[in-house]
Amino acid sequence: MYRSHNCGELRNSDINSDVTLAGWVQKTRDKGFMIWVDLRDRYGITQLIFDEERTPTEVFEKAKSLGREFVIQAKGAVIERASKNDNIPTGAIEILVTEITILNEAQLPPFTIENETDGGEDIRMKYRYLDIRRNPVKDNLIFRHKVTMEVRKYLSNQSFVEIETPYLIKSTPEGARDFVVPSRMNENQFYALPQSPQTFKQLLMVGGMDKYFQIVKCFRDEDLRADRQPEFTQIDCEMAFVEQEDILQIFEGLTRHLLKEINGVEIDNFPRMTYDDAMRKYGNDKPDIRFGMEFGELNDVAKHKDFKVFNEAELVVGIAVPGGASYTRKEIDKLIDWVKRPQVGALGMVYVKCNEDGTYKSSVDKFYDQEDLSNWAKTTGANAGDLICVLSGVTHKVRAQLSALRMELAERLGLRKNNEFAPLWVIDFPLLEWDEETERYHAMHHPFTSPKPGQIELLATHPGDVKANAYDLVLNGNEIGGGSIRIHDKETQALMFDYLGFSPEEAKEQFGFLMDAFQYGAPPHGGIAFGLDRLVAILGGQETIRDFIAFPKNNSGRDVMIDAPSAIDQQQLDELNLALKS
Amino acid sequence: MYRSHNCGELRNSDINSDVTLAGWVQKTRDKGFMIWVDLRDRYGITQLIFDEERTPTEVFEKAKSLGREFVIQAKGAVIERASKNDNIPTGAIEILVTEITILNEAQLPPFTIENETDGGEDIRMKYRYLDIRRNPVKDNLIFRHKVTMEVRKYLSNQSFVEIETPYLIKSTPEGARDFVVPSRMNENQFYALPQSPQTFKQLLMVGGMDKYFQIVKCFRDEDLRADRQPEFTQIDCEMAFVEQEDILQIFEGLTRHLLKEINGVEIDNFPRMTYDDAMRKYGNDKPDIRFGMEFGELNDVAKHKDFKVFNEAELVVGIAVPGGASYTRKEIDKLIDWVKRPQVGALGMVYVKCNEDGTYKSSVDKFYDQEDLSNWAKTTGANAGDLICVLSGVTHKVRAQLSALRMELAERLGLRKNNEFAPLWVIDFPLLEWDEETERYHAMHHPFTSPKPGQIELLATHPGDVKANAYDLVLNGNEIGGGSIRIHDKETQALMFDYLGFSPEEAKEQFGFLMDAFQYGAPPHGGIAFGLDRLVAILGGQETIRDFIAFPKNNSGRDVMIDAPSAIDQQQLDELNLALKS
Repeated sequence: MYRSHNCGELRNSDINSDVTLAGWVQKTRDKGFMIWVDLRDRYGITQLIFDEERTPTEVFEKAKSLGREFVIQAKGAVIERASKNDNIPTGAIEILVTEITILNEAQLPPFTIENETDGGEDIRMKYRYLDIRRNPVKDNLIFRHKVTMEVRKYLSNQSFVEIETPYLIKSTPEGARDFVVPSRMNENQFYALPQSPQTFKQLLMVGGMDKYFQIVKCFRDEDLRADRQPEFTQIDCEMAFVEQEDILQIFEGLTRHLLKEINGVEIDNFPRMTYDDAMRKYGNDKPDIRFGMEFGELNDVAKHKDFKVFNEAELVVGIAVPGGASYTRKEIDKLIDWVKRPQVGALGMVYVKCNEDGTYKSSVDKFYDQEDLSNWAKTTGANAGDLICVLSGVTHKVRAQLSALRMELAERLGLRKNNEFAPLWVIDFPLLEWDEETERYHAMHHPFTSPKPGQIELLATHPGDVKANAYDLVLNGNEIGGGSIRIHDKETQALMFDYLGFSPEEAKEQFGFLMDAFQYGAPPHGGIAFGLDRLVAILGGQETIRDFIAFPKNNSGRDVMIDAPSAIDQQQLDELNLALKS
Repeated sequence: MYRSHNCGELRNSDINSDVTLAGWVQKTRDKGFMIWVDLRDRYGITQLIFDEERTPTEVFEKAKSLGREFVIQAKGAVIERASKNDNIPTGAIEILVTEITILNEAQLPPFTIENETDGGEDIRMKYRYLDIRRNPVKDNLIFRHKVTMEVRKYLSNQSFVEIETPYLIKSTPEGARDFVVPSRMNENQFYALPQSPQTFKQLLMVGGMDKYFQIVKCFRDEDLRADRQPEFTQIDCEMAFVEQEDILQIFEGLTRHLLKEINGVEIDNFPRMTYDDAMRKYGNDKPDIRFGMEFGELNDVAKHKDFKVFNEAELVVGIAVPGGASYTRKEIDKLIDWVKRPQVGALGMVYVKCNEDGTYKSSVDKFYDQEDLSNWAKTTGANAGDLICVLSGVTHKVRAQLSALRMELAERLGLRKNNEFAPLWVIDFPLLEWDEETERYHAMHHPFTSPKPGQIELLATHPGDVKANAYDLVLNGNEIGGGSIRIHDKETQALMFDYLGFSPEEAKEQFGFLMDAFQYGAPPHGGIAFGLDRLVAILGGQETIRDFIAFPKNNSGRDVMIDAPSAIDQQQLDELNLALKS
């Protein structure tokens, strides 16, 4: 062992002990006759002291040669510090070094290894092993470990069994694009990496395992949006003989446990909201309910005058911005520009200032009188001093636009506090959603989700109206988990595949094993999957998942540290019977 | 919830309670006026009773219609059983059913869902979801979960942090063959699936994480031998600022913990043996030391006579088979045939019967007298009543042959008891091993293993003699873990790559990131990886890993249940810019 103690544990009570420490040189201060070295490891920082009088000459000289990030071993006695540092746990003591060994020298790192670094994202990713030495990244990884341990303990105590499902599975065109893996032993055939262990966990239920979970990597070959990774981690769960309520209870329990153990926050019961209500009140199926600013639908009080824009709109809808009446004309113009950005896509914005004296001043005073505006204020819940922002247009578009505005304003107003936690179940999701590109219905959750009892007949006439026992767990405006009660009989599953545009042959070829399984005694079952990367980030009070992943990939799916992906040998291609086309 | 209790928990104390159970029909016994149904779930079996007098008619009729593996829900009262069944925990009670719901019917399963099944390997794999319903498979999966939970608890309590490393990494030609994953976003480039997280865990040590572990899937595209899987699970571990002794202590502690918690077996200190001793005494670097039968090297006492076969052999070596003197001539001939099989490859076998009267009778009495044979008996530790089996030839071949014979005989003699556990550290492995096919040295462990201090100079003159701080943990004749102290400076690593036949360019292209990392302050470090599949199988008293994997692949790397790998769409190939060559 290179050390008797780590760099975070020595205290007053250790004074006069002889110790051996090992770690990295965080920094040195050389006063000529005296040298201090901050020695760092994962556990903390301990100050080493060398002085001309008490330190052997060759040790003193060696101390002079130390550079940042050198790896050293130091032996010496724990002594009381002359000037204590109350900011660190070891601040009462220092080590009077009698022996020092340089275990490894270090080149000057390409960025400073400090909590606040001068390194940009790119350089930090290239030298991720140095970035990990920094406390914020190191602490995030340790935090992630704590969360996964708590998840495992909780679920294991509830009789869940963690079962590993295979990574080399079968490609299916439904859903996102698969990563594929050519098989050498089965010529011209490919495995696929799982987008989730969905069918396997259902087969485990058919297999009687009753309560399954797995913390598991999943893969999607999608064009990456910001903060998406081609490989990501799920807490994947499934239960047999349950209804939706059972799943909500169990996994509300898990989330409550995490909030308590990890964040010290106690939350009694998680509120629930239907998908339809979430869309109406927040324009969004994952509303952040840490703050209000609920939508007020204004069709009834804004379509009775000559304002053509509103009259022709499917939906007129507004929100009240607390204190927004004081915004200058310039500030409001900038807000209008913001909603007109292509990423948001509104054509314009109507606003109403709710003056402190109870009067209103709007951008549409030509069309609406004080009573009209007073009704708008009532509907949006605006008080004196607020600003009402109103958008109009096609319902689903205008909701998305106003939702974006709501989130942006909340961010600016400091309403999205990262030490506040507001979980929410969103339930009663539609079974299907219309895809404008392919002009057909897709499964909103996935093709294994069961329609609500009694609604299956609606599929033939009003497919868009069919609801599912599908639910999302939302935390602070992020979907952290989602699941559903599954289909567990062959006929319904075949019907679903039919509605989703599978021919019977395609359904059989891709999911025949699952439909076969349903014929041998499949229990009712359902489950949920949490996105671990995001869950951990949000519990950690942050929104960027990349800082909670040890070795993330960039937006082109590259690992810039190891420089992957890369070309492979011709021999490897030959063995796989593959050729590059160009 | 479909049930108030599971099928394993009702006892005498529950009598008169009204309960709801759900599960599978294990079997029904229909006496005409009375029907018993064994209802099964993951937790056990509970007997349901229906009788003409007490059961409502329509419920009674429904009970008559139940087939094996039907999924049902049953409500009723817990009553005392007339004839108790002491073999199951619920054997004191039964449920007088008042209401029954068939949740799903079942076709007759293709094999019986019993502890002993009539299903062959192939059919069980195709319907693995039914196989999992059988207690032996179900219990193995739950057992695996328990082992991994204990591993995680133990390591986490020792300040290890579980950190996920990426699955989409870079292909390197060294070692076994990689599975590759074509990248769509990076044309003509490929990821590789990790054979192990080796370089990443070393980078985590450079990153100061200090103690890392991960239970992680690894992938090798090898021609599969029996009981090998293309994807397998490792308990992967690494520590900084440690020497070999520290690693042995920590992971001996982990293994001791598992043996105690999982098997109730307490073992104080694990014996240690050098690789050279293991090869000399057992002909094998993973000796099963649950039994003796150590090798006796006979060169000194067998090469002094006119027996040409021995005189020309590099090594003459024997083992004593307890009680083997009683073998008939026919039995011994069969043993000789066994060692001559191509899988073993011996040219012949000399034997000596150690008679109860202290005399010897050998197959080479023409050449050796009683004193010679008495010396052989002394050297092999043979007692009266034993049989000495002697092989001769080239050292490394004859050792392997005699090792195979030793294991076979121990198996036949019942010396390999699956409830006995004999761990062993094998240490001081050679750094390199000669590969006859490629006619060069390969890294025995991997290219990141450090030569023993002071031996690096030997590389130039006697590469085969260089030893490494590399170690294997052996349990009952199986390697369950292996690791080493790593190289942590760029120069030594470059030298190693040079000896292993990498050009400086190749080394830089494939492992440049690691050698770069070593320049920025890499601590001394080392680690170990356990093969989880095998570890779990051995702790479970079995040797076949397949029964401890939920969805294993067959010897062609196929998942016969989902029928993977399979062909993929032309569109998928096009997007990946790939063509099949034939």
